[in-house]
Amino acid sequence: MSARRTVILRAAARVIAQRGIRGLRVEELAQEADVSTSLIYYHFRDRAGLLAHTLDFINARAEHYTHPSSDPDADPRGHLEETLLLELQDTPAVVENSTAWGELRSTAVFQPELRPQLRATTDSWNDYIGDLIHNAQQAGHAAPDASPEEAAARLTALVEGLSKRWLSGSLTLERARHLLRGAITAELAP
Amino acid sequence: MSARRTVILRAAARVIAQRGIRGLRVEELAQEADVSTSLIYYHFRDRAGLLAHTLDFINARAEHYTHPSSDPDADPRGHLEETLLLELQDTPAVVENSTAWGELRSTAVFQPELRPQLRATTDSWNDYIGDLIHNAQQAGHAAPDASPEEAAARLTALVEGLSKRWLSGSLTLERARHLLRGAITAELAP
Repeated sequence: MSARRTVILRAAARVIAQRGIRGLRVEELAQEADVSTSLIYYHFRDRAGLLAHTLDFINARAEHYTHPSSDPDADPRGHLEETLLLELQDTPAVVENSTAWGELRSTAVFQPELRPQLRATTDSWNDYIGDLIHNAQQAGHAAPDASPEEAAARLTALVEGLSKRWLSGSLTLERARHLLRGAITAELAP
Repeated sequence: MSARRTVILRAAARVIAQRGIRGLRVEELAQEADVSTSLIYYHFRDRAGLLAHTLDFINARAEHYTHPSSDPDADPRGHLEETLLLELQDTPAVVENSTAWGELRSTAVFQPELRPQLRATTDSWNDYIGDLIHNAQQAGHAAPDASPEEAAARLTALVEGLSKRWLSGSLTLERARHLLRGAITAELAP
């Protein structure tokens, strides 16, 4: 990806996290990224193209901060738990990413053109977590009768629900993390 | 509540569900409700007052459509399940309410003045579901070691997460309901 393109996408994620998607004006983004509006249109064609690429950008970035330190082979269950909990962290990168992700999800309620990509991204996330659950089962660290696919779909939807409650001030981060840990136990048994 | 006041709040919930909170302009709301803008300001003082009362309004309305047919005394577990599942229905009232609720939650990320009321409303919802879980436990229809308070906080956060995924086209309503049923089983045992 060209350096200018990355600068624009990084600025877009920042602006969305600060003011929301509906606060994202191409003119202000140009100012924030210190580029011309025509460069933004050159790279992303229109606002929809910009949003689609911002979604890709924040997903690629999430793959970095959700990279757990635990060994997936030696401790698949711990690895799963760590992977999910890394989505609930009070660091600028996670707060910005989660806020922008929540905004893209909310906007898709009103802008159907965002939905196919959001659905595909959600499906990959579910598949990834489902694989980790399957590995934990293979290692005997999770109840064998749990459906990895369904447990994954619930745990990622819960992460979104808890993250949004935390970001909107309805619960503390510590409580959100505690509740998520309890959900993993409820889904996969201790 | 005066009839005019109700007409305004009903129109506000409708506009928010159609265009999002950030698409809610007092001028357009006045047109939608067929009242003057000054009447809106007279009743709600400002946009923040209007949003706060709209939140109350959609909560009061949710209490009607989430009123289950099952007997809370004879079948507390079925009553709990029905209460939660009533939040995931493809009827105009539920879609409108859930969309508006999601919008208020999203907006509170950027407008801290909405947070105290949203938190109080979330807490009451959790308390209500926690009481139903407690009743199910008393009747021997739920695992006695589950924490009603924590299970309730997770189940309501999951309802929000699933509802948003459904409204944003990432999963079908049927799948959302199936996943919610599975979460109740995981939390409270069969």
